[in-house]
Amino acid sequence: MAMQRTPLLMARLIERGAALSPDTEVVTATAAGTRRQTNRDTLQRAHRLAHALRDAGIGVGDRVGVFMWNGSRHLEAYWAIACMGAVLHNLNVRLPGHDLDYIINHAQSKLIIADADLLPLLEPLAGRLPSVEKIVVAVEEGYEDWSTSLPGPVDYEDFIAPWSEGFTWPPLDENAPLALCYTSGTTGRPKGVEYEHRSQYLHTMAMCMTDAMGLSATDTVFRVVPMFHVMGWGLPWAALMLGCKQVMPHRFTSPERLVRLMADEAVTLATGVPTIWQNVRTVCMARPGAHDLSSLARIVSGGSAVPPSLARWYWEALGVEMIQEWGMTETSPLATFSRRRWGPGPASATAPDEYLAEVAKAGQALPGLEVEIVDEEFAPLPHDGQQTGEILVRGPWVCADYYRDPQPGKFHGDWLITGDVGRIDNRDCLVLADRSKDLVRSGGEWISSVDLENHILALAGVAQACVVAQSHPTWDERPVALVVLDRGAELAVDQVLEHCSNRFAKWQLPDDVLFVESIPLTSTGKMDKKAVRADLAESGYTLPGLRQASP
Amino acid sequence: MAMQRTPLLMARLIERGAALSPDTEVVTATAAGTRRQTNRDTLQRAHRLAHALRDAGIGVGDRVGVFMWNGSRHLEAYWAIACMGAVLHNLNVRLPGHDLDYIINHAQSKLIIADADLLPLLEPLAGRLPSVEKIVVAVEEGYEDWSTSLPGPVDYEDFIAPWSEGFTWPPLDENAPLALCYTSGTTGRPKGVEYEHRSQYLHTMAMCMTDAMGLSATDTVFRVVPMFHVMGWGLPWAALMLGCKQVMPHRFTSPERLVRLMADEAVTLATGVPTIWQNVRTVCMARPGAHDLSSLARIVSGGSAVPPSLARWYWEALGVEMIQEWGMTETSPLATFSRRRWGPGPASATAPDEYLAEVAKAGQALPGLEVEIVDEEFAPLPHDGQQTGEILVRGPWVCADYYRDPQPGKFHGDWLITGDVGRIDNRDCLVLADRSKDLVRSGGEWISSVDLENHILALAGVAQACVVAQSHPTWDERPVALVVLDRGAELAVDQVLEHCSNRFAKWQLPDDVLFVESIPLTSTGKMDKKAVRADLAESGYTLPGLRQASP
Repeated sequence: MAMQRTPLLMARLIERGAALSPDTEVVTATAAGTRRQTNRDTLQRAHRLAHALRDAGIGVGDRVGVFMWNGSRHLEAYWAIACMGAVLHNLNVRLPGHDLDYIINHAQSKLIIADADLLPLLEPLAGRLPSVEKIVVAVEEGYEDWSTSLPGPVDYEDFIAPWSEGFTWPPLDENAPLALCYTSGTTGRPKGVEYEHRSQYLHTMAMCMTDAMGLSATDTVFRVVPMFHVMGWGLPWAALMLGCKQVMPHRFTSPERLVRLMADEAVTLATGVPTIWQNVRTVCMARPGAHDLSSLARIVSGGSAVPPSLARWYWEALGVEMIQEWGMTETSPLATFSRRRWGPGPASATAPDEYLAEVAKAGQALPGLEVEIVDEEFAPLPHDGQQTGEILVRGPWVCADYYRDPQPGKFHGDWLITGDVGRIDNRDCLVLADRSKDLVRSGGEWISSVDLENHILALAGVAQACVVAQSHPTWDERPVALVVLDRGAELAVDQVLEHCSNRFAKWQLPDDVLFVESIPLTSTGKMDKKAVRADLAESGYTLPGLRQASP
Repeated sequence: MAMQRTPLLMARLIERGAALSPDTEVVTATAAGTRRQTNRDTLQRAHRLAHALRDAGIGVGDRVGVFMWNGSRHLEAYWAIACMGAVLHNLNVRLPGHDLDYIINHAQSKLIIADADLLPLLEPLAGRLPSVEKIVVAVEEGYEDWSTSLPGPVDYEDFIAPWSEGFTWPPLDENAPLALCYTSGTTGRPKGVEYEHRSQYLHTMAMCMTDAMGLSATDTVFRVVPMFHVMGWGLPWAALMLGCKQVMPHRFTSPERLVRLMADEAVTLATGVPTIWQNVRTVCMARPGAHDLSSLARIVSGGSAVPPSLARWYWEALGVEMIQEWGMTETSPLATFSRRRWGPGPASATAPDEYLAEVAKAGQALPGLEVEIVDEEFAPLPHDGQQTGEILVRGPWVCADYYRDPQPGKFHGDWLITGDVGRIDNRDCLVLADRSKDLVRSGGEWISSVDLENHILALAGVAQACVVAQSHPTWDERPVALVVLDRGAELAVDQVLEHCSNRFAKWQLPDDVLFVESIPLTSTGKMDKKAVRADLAESGYTLPGLRQASP
């Protein structure tokens, strides 16, 4: 044996930050303001939670459900559960009850840690979760009078109170499971992806590279992306490892509150889906200069494609660099980043156009991962920026199968078939097209709803745009655009169509433009096109060209 | 199996850069100027070299010696040898013949790739290297008439000429050996450290973090640190992985040439030992403004402690951030970095004093490694910035033992005993004191030669300072300072001593100050204190207080 065979365990990474930056703060939003504790406090409380969990019968390999907003106790749960060798089972608080029921029973979670304000969502499940022996309730201001009929309820603080720090993390195999995340499946039951210590360790190392998001110990990280959504994009682990200041919004996710929190805490790096940043932009535009966001340097956005007009606005109005990432539950989740370092910083950047061209792409695969595009027979397509194909991915933080739910059809050899569609350019940058199901198939040709949305978003007065397919007897499908306007803005259908015709061919233009108050979002904050299509169907919507003259 | 079991092989990392930045250049200094090839060329040539090596009988596990300056063919050798599963055996061109002889025979290298200008150093070994079957000679301008009596000589270009690209890298165990580096041992025979794919893979991931050296694909990397010295600090792998522009000085390492090359190629990041940067400073000071170093943003320095006055000069005169790293052959070699990102860049940094205080430290352990200090009974010492102890290190890129040369005395449990001495402060930053053998033990107290050197270097007119111990009948040892002055500078012994007395107690002051033309360097470019002491002994040097009145 030439080199040490140190197993790649998360406990070895994440205790580092508390030693390096013991006094740096973990900040959680509350009704009245914020709660604050240091990294050292967080370490001690994570150790105490581990003692309490072990005392409650949680051992290596046991699943512990966590049903919480982003906050300090959620972070402690990440730390304690993973490092003690148990399995952190993230529960998406926005899932419908029948899905929650299914995944808790499928995972066989023994204990659930839940925020008190979320208990009403769990209450309907009482009596239907035979594996759950205990519920630990994290209580924030105003929820002191919580109650639940789930078994063994105990206040989180009472639960950890008897214990002191100094939990000895057990030796584990580096391929031991660490967490379990279920995809919010668009078809069929949710499917679980079981992360392992080694896979998350490597993912954490990769995401701290300069060309990923440039994450540094000196960053103040604002985690808008929910920690119940694919490991919070790995930020909890990375921020603990580096010892960053961490700011979390808990349940206070209105755009106004997010902006205020970023300003008050001098946030330097924020993460979330594009719809969040569209809403934040709306708040900033409504009262220019009202909030000091001068500390904010980078926004990491992913989950769906970043509209170029959005990146341009943040760059020009706030001097903020937007970084697009692409990934999914099956890829831990970070797979590609649009970022190349642009000189010393946005303000002095010499090539904003080059930057804006790059951020419109999903970017280059993180070192260690491989990304490929293929045709319908799985033949690799050229990396010429032109040809569009199904995106495949493989590497040490890509799943090999689903948890107790084999899906051989989701893999091709050792490649994961992502269900996303894209192009790869001659510098190996991935450019996302639509997810297959979001492409509009018209007259045997494909129309990209993302391209149409991005173009419509660049029109002044447009806050959000969503393009969906509607059935058509002749053309198979035709696109329809739903548009949310900025407060006070006015636009006519013809103005939108004329703007589209600057770039798109006649057959690619939407058949209709509907002005709406809002676009429904999925549990992970993306535009919910399935819901949009369902709403249109329910309201009896018909394409203009198919409407019968009234009798 | 939940996540993919992708083995951590270097071939999976380093081909990435050529796909991302195929047209980016690899630049090698020549007598007349530079040789240039693209990343794509380098990939193709590495594949051709692998074909040729396999044809010459090199298989998985075989050692291939490389006796070369930093240049494109050396880089190709790194790539081909490692990825084909053979073992890259770095030969330090500055080693004495008897050490070379020993390590080539100890490693049982089958083939050697050597620069033509270095053949005279190998010639004396002809007939004494039974394992070596073939020598491949890399020929630069002016050395076309090379000859050697080593077996099977062939020109490098002729060797790879018959082959085309498309070598299929074999599947390997991730713990398969990759390279073999011998320490330039201060006592006893050189000892080999055998690196593995997994250990170098993890080392490469860690060194690309923002808080390590902020390495980015957009950097132009100038590798002054020799690639025959501990994997060139890992830069060859990292630069290939990211697709950086790489600049290498080959044998042209005069400070004047280094400065010119940095200016001509718009280098952004340079790596080398402190003595290099002292010499470069001297060149810059001699002709201020003669060379445009405005692109240079960061210098990574290690191998010995970085004098604070040197870091201050680069910061103030050139706006360059210096980053101190600490490590050794046994740690692959990077273990700690002084860097925390200082805002958007040096020019706009708000806290230069804070920066200068940090760069004087060896820094924080890279994520994955653990560093500890202990007393003589191996009891851990407090991290209070005060207590000095032996430095221990462990982690996945620390060696577990030496190659065919077990040294149980060098380990304590799974900790490597580094032989270095230091303090750890309350933010877990390592501060180097001397190597144990370089401390001066006077009257039962320790005097730090590094502290004295750093202080003397801050005196205007001083170019280099070296403090060594001399035996003393009463005090055991007493310090003596050797000083090299800047060109044209004049200083008296008393001025140096008076300057030292501003900070040090009377008993800590050097007993003598000797003005010398130069300080001898080790094969890795550090001050060779063993040679300094030997020179003093040979010249019959006696401490002033011990000199007899002449008879």
